[in-house]
Amino acid sequence: MRNLKLTLAYDGADFHGWQVQPGRATIQGALAEALEHVTGATGLPQGAGRTDAGVHALGQVAAWSTAAPIPARNLAAALNDALPPSIRVLAVEEVAPGFHPRGTARAKTYRYRIFRASVCPPFIARYVWHHPYALDEAAMMAAAPLVEGRHDFTSFAAVDAERSERLAHEEASNVRTIFSSRWARQEDELIYTVRGDGFLHHMVRNLVGAFLLVGRGTLQPQALCQILAARSRSKNPAATAPAAGLCLMEVEY
Amino acid sequence: MRNLKLTLAYDGADFHGWQVQPGRATIQGALAEALEHVTGATGLPQGAGRTDAGVHALGQVAAWSTAAPIPARNLAAALNDALPPSIRVLAVEEVAPGFHPRGTARAKTYRYRIFRASVCPPFIARYVWHHPYALDEAAMMAAAPLVEGRHDFTSFAAVDAERSERLAHEEASNVRTIFSSRWARQEDELIYTVRGDGFLHHMVRNLVGAFLLVGRGTLQPQALCQILAARSRSKNPAATAPAAGLCLMEVEY
Repeated sequence: MRNLKLTLAYDGADFHGWQVQPGRATIQGALAEALEHVTGATGLPQGAGRTDAGVHALGQVAAWSTAAPIPARNLAAALNDALPPSIRVLAVEEVAPGFHPRGTARAKTYRYRIFRASVCPPFIARYVWHHPYALDEAAMMAAAPLVEGRHDFTSFAAVDAERSERLAHEEASNVRTIFSSRWARQEDELIYTVRGDGFLHHMVRNLVGAFLLVGRGTLQPQALCQILAARSRSKNPAATAPAAGLCLMEVEY
Repeated sequence: MRNLKLTLAYDGADFHGWQVQPGRATIQGALAEALEHVTGATGLPQGAGRTDAGVHALGQVAAWSTAAPIPARNLAAALNDALPPSIRVLAVEEVAPGFHPRGTARAKTYRYRIFRASVCPPFIARYVWHHPYALDEAAMMAAAPLVEGRHDFTSFAAVDAERSERLAHEEASNVRTIFSSRWARQEDELIYTVRGDGFLHHMVRNLVGAFLLVGRGTLQPQALCQILAARSRSKNPAATAPAAGLCLMEVEY
């Protein structure tokens, strides 16, 4: 049995997210199909992050085990032949049996792109949130580091009944550490880069939504600390930012 | 009556080309729908170039006449609200009644992108031809200017029965002037830029196909002159290059 680590890039616009769903195009499903086509072996690859519908990746990591003898080097090329051009295998490495793409990840980095000019070029429309309206970008930049550190991020997590149950029984925790949180301007784009030890469902998009309220002047930067302390999604007035702007950049082990 | 000139950018990947077709998504059809939605007036906008299915534009030009009183400035914003994000109106100007986007065009510039590295990033896969195989790029660069000047480009035009009929009756001509024809390397891309007074159907993609045979060593650069002189598509061994790599960059008046 060989344990493989696959590094993937994908354009998520035409997929219903990472996680396999019957009758829908998903990244995990397409990858499983390609793996079966190339090696003859079945089994779902496990991802480091379950990216939502429309979310992209430059450095998603998946694990897959196989008894097939195909060399790792040829596997990447063979998979890329079998996959649609919107999903690319960037690297295939053999790893130790204990490798779990989610559990053993040391850090993940996400990027969120907001396009600020009045007309969004059609060639990047799939990869950004087009928001040409007035924003106090300096206030957003000042607010970004306030969420760094170890916090309970319940106020920034999607509400999920099953997970709430597990949290109540202390089988899960919403405590995460954000190592760095920064907004930066790059030509017509306002780009948020966040690196942390893990992220809750919708956490990056809800953080972006809250920073946007700071940019609009609806929230003071310090209000983010109160929202964090409240540990309740209903105490966070921010809407979840659209999926298109989000990209999983890197998973570190 | 006001005559409007619209400058458009579009991602052609999800469209069946410029020209309206019943039951199919086309650029002309989507633009006509948006114009009707915004102004209430019907009528097909006329394009400077009938880009094929999958071909993109950064500077397509269309003409449209209307009796509606909406100001040109607001029209662009209103059209962009009504159009899908893959089509953007970059500018709307009022022009004299004699303006014909195709007939009065002085020059058009097309660009063709070939991606040369082994793995094509999913974010540009829609906009390039992925060709990672060996090519003598210096030979292609040397061959490019050989097609400059005034020539009969029948050998590089799609065969079309109706057009052949018109040519036979001297109601049409396949003579065009190419002002400049150049290949250049830009990081992982080999980019062809061609500017001319007009282009026949498939002409740029057939030129790219022929240059590719030069890059492979199948054709000597000088063979392009013989192919031109033959004035027959069947004397040109090149396949038509894929649509995805092609983009209409600019139309000059």
